[in-house]
Amino acid sequence: MSVTAAKGFEAAGVAAGLKSTGAKDVAVVVNRGPLKAAAAVFTSNRAKANPILWSQQAIADGVVEAIVLNSGGANCFTGDFGFQTTHQTAEKAAELLGISAGDVLVCSTGLIGFGDEVFRAKVLDGTEKGVAGLSAEGGEDAAAAIMTTDTVAKTAVRQADGWTLGGMAKGAGMLAPGLATMLVVITTDAVLDAGRLDAHLRAATRVTFDRLDSDGCMSTNDQVTLLASGASGIEPDEDAFRTALIEVCNELAAKLQDDAEGASHAITIEVVGAASEDDAVEVGRSVARNNLFKAAIFGSDPNWGRVLAAIGTTEAEFDPYDVDVSMNGVRVCTKGGPDRPREEIDLTPRATHVLIDLRAGDATATILTNDLTHDYVHENSAYSS
Amino acid sequence: MSVTAAKGFEAAGVAAGLKSTGAKDVAVVVNRGPLKAAAAVFTSNRAKANPILWSQQAIADGVVEAIVLNSGGANCFTGDFGFQTTHQTAEKAAELLGISAGDVLVCSTGLIGFGDEVFRAKVLDGTEKGVAGLSAEGGEDAAAAIMTTDTVAKTAVRQADGWTLGGMAKGAGMLAPGLATMLVVITTDAVLDAGRLDAHLRAATRVTFDRLDSDGCMSTNDQVTLLASGASGIEPDEDAFRTALIEVCNELAAKLQDDAEGASHAITIEVVGAASEDDAVEVGRSVARNNLFKAAIFGSDPNWGRVLAAIGTTEAEFDPYDVDVSMNGVRVCTKGGPDRPREEIDLTPRATHVLIDLRAGDATATILTNDLTHDYVHENSAYSS
Repeated sequence: MSVTAAKGFEAAGVAAGLKSTGAKDVAVVVNRGPLKAAAAVFTSNRAKANPILWSQQAIADGVVEAIVLNSGGANCFTGDFGFQTTHQTAEKAAELLGISAGDVLVCSTGLIGFGDEVFRAKVLDGTEKGVAGLSAEGGEDAAAAIMTTDTVAKTAVRQADGWTLGGMAKGAGMLAPGLATMLVVITTDAVLDAGRLDAHLRAATRVTFDRLDSDGCMSTNDQVTLLASGASGIEPDEDAFRTALIEVCNELAAKLQDDAEGASHAITIEVVGAASEDDAVEVGRSVARNNLFKAAIFGSDPNWGRVLAAIGTTEAEFDPYDVDVSMNGVRVCTKGGPDRPREEIDLTPRATHVLIDLRAGDATATILTNDLTHDYVHENSAYSS
Repeated sequence: MSVTAAKGFEAAGVAAGLKSTGAKDVAVVVNRGPLKAAAAVFTSNRAKANPILWSQQAIADGVVEAIVLNSGGANCFTGDFGFQTTHQTAEKAAELLGISAGDVLVCSTGLIGFGDEVFRAKVLDGTEKGVAGLSAEGGEDAAAAIMTTDTVAKTAVRQADGWTLGGMAKGAGMLAPGLATMLVVITTDAVLDAGRLDAHLRAATRVTFDRLDSDGCMSTNDQVTLLASGASGIEPDEDAFRTALIEVCNELAAKLQDDAEGASHAITIEVVGAASEDDAVEVGRSVARNNLFKAAIFGSDPNWGRVLAAIGTTEAEFDPYDVDVSMNGVRVCTKGGPDRPREEIDLTPRATHVLIDLRAGDATATILTNDLTHDYVHENSAYSS
């Protein structure tokens, strides 16, 4: 049910010719209210695509009525012409919907540096078709339209005491913190103002999408948007809402990890015994970004020395000679020295668990990543062709 | 001529059975004086191998008479037993040479977490054979003995007004700043005390080895050592010595880059127009560590958007929308927008030049890296087997 699981939302996914395959490539999501509250988090990359520059302005007042999303071109580093394309997209949607362009967000994904007149014409055409095709059952089509190298559409839904949360996500490469080449739209019919939505969204992304680091490459186009229609008429319990939002984000993040470009292992790096949560995140991320470790996991090689070499580059508080490392339940390293023989570890399953005990405190964090494979290299060596 | 190009040095490279191929795997370099001055820089990884822990102590007084180096095992995270192996290696060499163990450095390279009794016995045996085989023509054998996945031995020599600098290096994977899985020994017969050697070595490695970042993975065992015998009797001009030392380090660094595991491109990332040298280094390194950019170069794809996405993650002072990017002489991006068509760029040559003009100042820096290839993944997915 995706973004139309919650009451008050309509969506569509249409084909506008941006994808050479003829698949759906433009999505429109509209909030029919009565509430039009919204919050969003954006890539922390200083190199921001035009849709990010636009959307950051548009959401400043906490009011969003519609989002137009396209695959098939990132519209990033396309100059003033590219910004005008985004602006015209919002104006086109606003005109057709009878709303203000300032209440329309735009998201784009695809090749950076691409966004010519043909691209613009197709996005505007797709926007028109999308608005014409809006329906309360359009959530799945919208989720399909934002896919790029994704092999499956990604959605998640949670329901609680009279209110619903539903979302869609796309992203397979350039997955890294803060965030990824990741577009996410989450909707709810709960009654929450923009300030509360913002607080819940930041709290949720911090422990979910921000801890998904597939390939260490931060995108120019990432955006996670949360829209509230208030159509359920129910003001949710704040803790229950945050918990459900974290669950939806976690489910979508796991689906992104599972579908990462070329990956043969979905690796969960659990760091425990850290002096602080920040330390745990830094340690986990250092392993997630270590190409030698990632290549070893691809080869089903439990090369724990590369884990220790990776974490030794961090500033986190711990003694490298007092660290334990387990892989898939087998402790191969105790206090910085060899423990069980590596032959006892079976790394052939796709799901891989690495447990790192820093023995420096009680804080923990989990980072999700993938292995470095031939297919990853292949997919990304010819992406623009 | 390697480490025996300078007068006052003897070396050997012998086979001790650490490499399953039967190739040479233990090297010994001895300084016959009259001067026994030395300086070294070590990996900045907090996870340091036993030979690093030993050598840092041994060189504290600036006096070194011999170095024993082995491939076939890193002796890292091998506990007290591993440290004793290093200690025994230094004592064995000292006993045979009639010197103090505290004046013997040890370097090891190979698999982390490996260093059992068989390893120890072979290293000690190799030390004995190496000392027995010392000769003033042994430099090439020593350079061969420290190779791991290297395909060629790496040496460099410079001669000036009566004094000589010569060096050997090994390293092909885990190449990153501060430093790499890189063992380097440089010798000179110039007359320089340990303090001067240290200043020159730090100045030289900062602009050479520290700017080689093949795969972003920092080693546990890196060590660059500079030994002075004083055998020429000549106190060199300090500027001339530093220049020659930088040349030797640059030549060895370029040879490491050229022989990096699985690489099909040697990429020179030249950053100009930076507000500071630190900014230029940070920007260059962000590109060198971006897997998407590295995979694109492997595919001969001039994907400049990935360059901008990478540098956008840095804290360096510049405007992402005012940056120029050229590849192999063709400017594809001007002021953050498309310039020449990507079809004009030929990325098929191994030597690849990326020029980034930040338009923010006058500082520059050059980072050397490699592409991300199928062969890199392959070599590193089964390294320990």
